[in-house]
Amino acid sequence: MQPSQRIQDISPSGDNGWGLFLQARDMIAQGIPVIELTIGEPDIRTDPSILNAMHASALGGHTGYTNVPGTTDLRRAIAARVSTRTGVKTTIDNVMITPGGQSALFSAHMGACNVGDTALYIDPFYATYPGTIRATGAVAQTIKTQSENGFQPTAADLNDAASKAQSLLINSPNNPTGSTYTAQTMQTIAETCQNHNLWLISDEVYDTQLWQGHHISPRALPHMAERTMVIGSLSKSHAMTGSRLGWIIAPETMIEHLTNLATHTTYGVQGYIQDAALFALNQGHTFEEKVAAPFKKRRDIALGIIANFPSLKAIPPKGGMYIMLDIRATGLSGKAFGEALLKKHHIAVMPGESFGQAAAGHIRIAMTVEDTKFANALTTLCQFATDLSNE
Amino acid sequence: MQPSQRIQDISPSGDNGWGLFLQARDMIAQGIPVIELTIGEPDIRTDPSILNAMHASALGGHTGYTNVPGTTDLRRAIAARVSTRTGVKTTIDNVMITPGGQSALFSAHMGACNVGDTALYIDPFYATYPGTIRATGAVAQTIKTQSENGFQPTAADLNDAASKAQSLLINSPNNPTGSTYTAQTMQTIAETCQNHNLWLISDEVYDTQLWQGHHISPRALPHMAERTMVIGSLSKSHAMTGSRLGWIIAPETMIEHLTNLATHTTYGVQGYIQDAALFALNQGHTFEEKVAAPFKKRRDIALGIIANFPSLKAIPPKGGMYIMLDIRATGLSGKAFGEALLKKHHIAVMPGESFGQAAAGHIRIAMTVEDTKFANALTTLCQFATDLSNE
Repeated sequence: MQPSQRIQDISPSGDNGWGLFLQARDMIAQGIPVIELTIGEPDIRTDPSILNAMHASALGGHTGYTNVPGTTDLRRAIAARVSTRTGVKTTIDNVMITPGGQSALFSAHMGACNVGDTALYIDPFYATYPGTIRATGAVAQTIKTQSENGFQPTAADLNDAASKAQSLLINSPNNPTGSTYTAQTMQTIAETCQNHNLWLISDEVYDTQLWQGHHISPRALPHMAERTMVIGSLSKSHAMTGSRLGWIIAPETMIEHLTNLATHTTYGVQGYIQDAALFALNQGHTFEEKVAAPFKKRRDIALGIIANFPSLKAIPPKGGMYIMLDIRATGLSGKAFGEALLKKHHIAVMPGESFGQAAAGHIRIAMTVEDTKFANALTTLCQFATDLSNE
Repeated sequence: MQPSQRIQDISPSGDNGWGLFLQARDMIAQGIPVIELTIGEPDIRTDPSILNAMHASALGGHTGYTNVPGTTDLRRAIAARVSTRTGVKTTIDNVMITPGGQSALFSAHMGACNVGDTALYIDPFYATYPGTIRATGAVAQTIKTQSENGFQPTAADLNDAASKAQSLLINSPNNPTGSTYTAQTMQTIAETCQNHNLWLISDEVYDTQLWQGHHISPRALPHMAERTMVIGSLSKSHAMTGSRLGWIIAPETMIEHLTNLATHTTYGVQGYIQDAALFALNQGHTFEEKVAAPFKKRRDIALGIIANFPSLKAIPPKGGMYIMLDIRATGLSGKAFGEALLKKHHIAVMPGESFGQAAAGHIRIAMTVEDTKFANALTTLCQFATDLSNE
């Protein structure tokens, strides 16, 4: 008996981009100390105050089934937060809680696209995007961007791709590139969606980690609320990756149908985690800034170090937890470089190729280890790349 | 902008079977005291010892991303449990942890069926089954059973339906009927799957709640392990409904692909909940019997009460948390009866029609409130039905 063709086709190359990450995890399991600059896992753990709130809720009896779209209190808090941050009136009927941002991404594409519809996404991309789209039976199609212009999609490329598509997935602040979309880019994206009648799926899980400018949510642009689904999560903003708590903001009718989808795919989210999430959101900006601060600091450390190695080129991140390094001078692919680095120096990074063709010859460095260790690892990495470039 | 046709089609009638349940919840929200005999929510809460184990894990730092198929310790414990209970060699490579049994049901169908394939299920059925299948893009097709022969599917009906199908979903002990499949029925099901090359998806979430005989897992029948996916969960066995912790047992290759599907749909399950689940499983049989005991007791109470009302007919449950009552003598549908009962006596049940055509004219009574309250509510219900029958 074979698994269905469709799940075999989620990662058609057999490589879903996680190979190097898993190799590093295997080495760690064997007792080899590896410095992981791979996934977007904050090095701080979830704050004990949040965990205590969770425990109080659980002991208080919130251990049963919850309403599928989420608790009223949490939905209300998120609606208020979105209203405040974007100026767009948002009610609990626009909010569905999901077991993590990944589940929200999958559900949003189920809601936007039928089987066989084309779903667009921007290259470079977060590693799960194409597989997520393919898992829904939609056709995953990239719009390539260029390292040279900060990975902003162009009007021409958007327009060409949009004519036969049903949805467009964007992510600003961006993983893996650290870029944020300019007001002009966002305007072009909004016009493209309107001209071609696309759903816009806007993954904004890094919206509290901005190092330059301010966050633009495209749902706030004129006439966009009715065709935009925003993906949110507490993973990055509150160091709650393992709590799997995310949400979708969408038009009311969409939320109704997404709730029915959730009834048949997950049946709701843990009540005590939703109560912990509510507590976390109620801690306000100061808490979020505290979680974001280490990444801002390490970004500056990293740019300082990389500047000492002229053959390497960093794309200065404007937001998020990552830095993209152009290592094309080494003559190696990101994957080959990553494998050599892991083997020789026990430092793990993500190859640019895990994030699409546009990031080939790059590596993504997660700024997720303690400052000194991070600085040392990055210096070793840069020296290694420079030595290779000079060979 | 409209939601995709496919999510609009998950519940084509617009009624997903939860209408009466939601009506009761609305009344409760308005402050009206309603006795809920609707969903399979144990009236005991999750044991504090399990919640304390969860909190210790969370405070201990298990708050980050986990391996997508689950923690090694939990997978190993479940594999050992399945091996012991069924005699079938089961390793961690046969186990994937899911965020609840519902997610496992959805994933198993994604793994078994391509879009357009026919997925069979037995009528009466748990309310989410058809929508779950439709959410995957497969075609949901029922095999009807009869109240009169204990809701066992017949060889002829299985065989007829199987010729054009790709999978068969069964549930024993059964929700909503309380029936368990006999050894003969299980043998017929196994032969049908082998003769027609079907995947068997066996939902066994009530396997610790058996009031007569012993549990038969069809995966243990000859040549069935290679084509069977078993759905498990701690919701019912450990009163952990709100913790959303389930699993799939399947062949290794299927687990590999299901893990890739999970990477793109949920991205793993909370580590601290997996640790709590491990703690719960380690409490052993005595704990599980303690959780199951109230339902066994209420089953006997219920059969005693119903025997006093000759116009009503209960199907004595062999397992699970529910009792099906044949109220056709009232001349009402299950839905009309349920609505009238809720309106007049503020007692909420699930109409048989929520579970398919074969259960029309029945109601499902969840035995999930404290004994005396349960006995009183059931007596009121039976008297109400009897009065209607005599009108």
